[in-house]
Amino acid sequence: MSDAKRVTAAVLLIGDEVLSGRTQDKNLQQIAQFLAPLGINVIECRTVPDEQDIIVDALNTLRARASYVFTTGGIGPTHDDITADAVAAAFGVPIDVRADALEIIEEWYARTQTPLTESRKRMARIPDGASLIDNPVTGAPGFQTGNVFTLAGVPKIARGMLEDIAHRLEGGAVTRSRSVKGEGLREGDIAVNLGALQEEFAQVSIGSYPYFLEVRDGEIRRGTHLVARSTDEDALDQVIERISVMVSDLGFEPQIDPEA
Amino acid sequence: MSDAKRVTAAVLLIGDEVLSGRTQDKNLQQIAQFLAPLGINVIECRTVPDEQDIIVDALNTLRARASYVFTTGGIGPTHDDITADAVAAAFGVPIDVRADALEIIEEWYARTQTPLTESRKRMARIPDGASLIDNPVTGAPGFQTGNVFTLAGVPKIARGMLEDIAHRLEGGAVTRSRSVKGEGLREGDIAVNLGALQEEFAQVSIGSYPYFLEVRDGEIRRGTHLVARSTDEDALDQVIERISVMVSDLGFEPQIDPEA
Repeated sequence: MSDAKRVTAAVLLIGDEVLSGRTQDKNLQQIAQFLAPLGINVIECRTVPDEQDIIVDALNTLRARASYVFTTGGIGPTHDDITADAVAAAFGVPIDVRADALEIIEEWYARTQTPLTESRKRMARIPDGASLIDNPVTGAPGFQTGNVFTLAGVPKIARGMLEDIAHRLEGGAVTRSRSVKGEGLREGDIAVNLGALQEEFAQVSIGSYPYFLEVRDGEIRRGTHLVARSTDEDALDQVIERISVMVSDLGFEPQIDPEA
Repeated sequence: MSDAKRVTAAVLLIGDEVLSGRTQDKNLQQIAQFLAPLGINVIECRTVPDEQDIIVDALNTLRARASYVFTTGGIGPTHDDITADAVAAAFGVPIDVRADALEIIEEWYARTQTPLTESRKRMARIPDGASLIDNPVTGAPGFQTGNVFTLAGVPKIARGMLEDIAHRLEGGAVTRSRSVKGEGLREGDIAVNLGALQEEFAQVSIGSYPYFLEVRDGEIRRGTHLVARSTDEDALDQVIERISVMVSDLGFEPQIDPEA
């Protein structure tokens, strides 16, 4: 590995609906793709149920382990929305309805002519000392507590909140990613040479990902994506060139993707 | 909660490609949906990189916490496939190429006229004492070590392997799930009554999930899914009926889905 600065993130997905299989999570992918160009790599993701003790434990582990933590889910107005209280408990700070958050919510609902119910006011419960995160989609803010960013679970809202986060993050060396696709290539054909190449280039992380696409008539099209990731662009270029030659030597057409 | 037997599962997704955002995981959802009818609920999911120490730590935590653990990813023939070694390390057992696994792989490759390279033989490395799991898609088996099931990362292959697992699992009380959709309903409209209903029915888990669908012309269609889950069918029926009335009283058309 190079000496480039390493900045890391962990993602905590909160919600019974993801664990039960009812909802397909999309937040890990969109958070990882948002952070990558900033030089921040996701090193772990946990998905936990709507239970305060479990959320608190996971949060305290992850915020000690990663530079930043992003939570999604559980900040709405209903009884199963317990993330704000869990974050406050994890940090050991009080929580109550906060005037700045309530003002944002009041203005939003006045503008959209929606009644401001008691339960909607619950969305203004913010841990002491946290700073708010704009929600351009539905008004009720997210919040930042130390190195922890608490976002909504609905992917469209979480995405909107990320726009108010980039400027708060100190990025690191950007990990670039390039890939070579070998249509028809099977992992076992290239594994030995690829392993030797990985030994040679310790500063590049080389991954091999087979794919199986079902095309018409139940026919399967298969092949392998060979992905190299590194903060060192020169080494990355060399590795991609070497992989292309390997794929070509095996009788397949290497298709280089310079951005993935 | 009722006295019904509680059987739990944890899912460990192994792979840099999921954490980097390159690949959208589909295995958590398909494993959860496979286990639900067997009365097994997923209580936690972790996604970790291709690093042995981290995999071992996560595996040892999860296998102590849940009745069953399902890992996906990292059992192919390339240098980044380290899951089998990590499982062996977690259980403190030796690992080597095993004759039974090698025979399966040899037969498969002979049949598909694919050369059996040294790296493909690597897929026959199985922890001592593990039992094999059929792979109807690409031959190379998964394996069961104690309460841990190690599956491939490609969703199609993982799905195939699950077929050889159901008969090994001791299920519990099946959690049924029903939902009421309120098109146009917003969470804040129903939150107070829903919270009171949750208080009344401790044996049912009630969740509220807003949705935002972008339809033509950038127009947003929104509403809320109200989901009840329980092992107690009578209580579930009562809760769904009560929620339907609430939605109706608020002026929206309740759409009941008896299976989700």
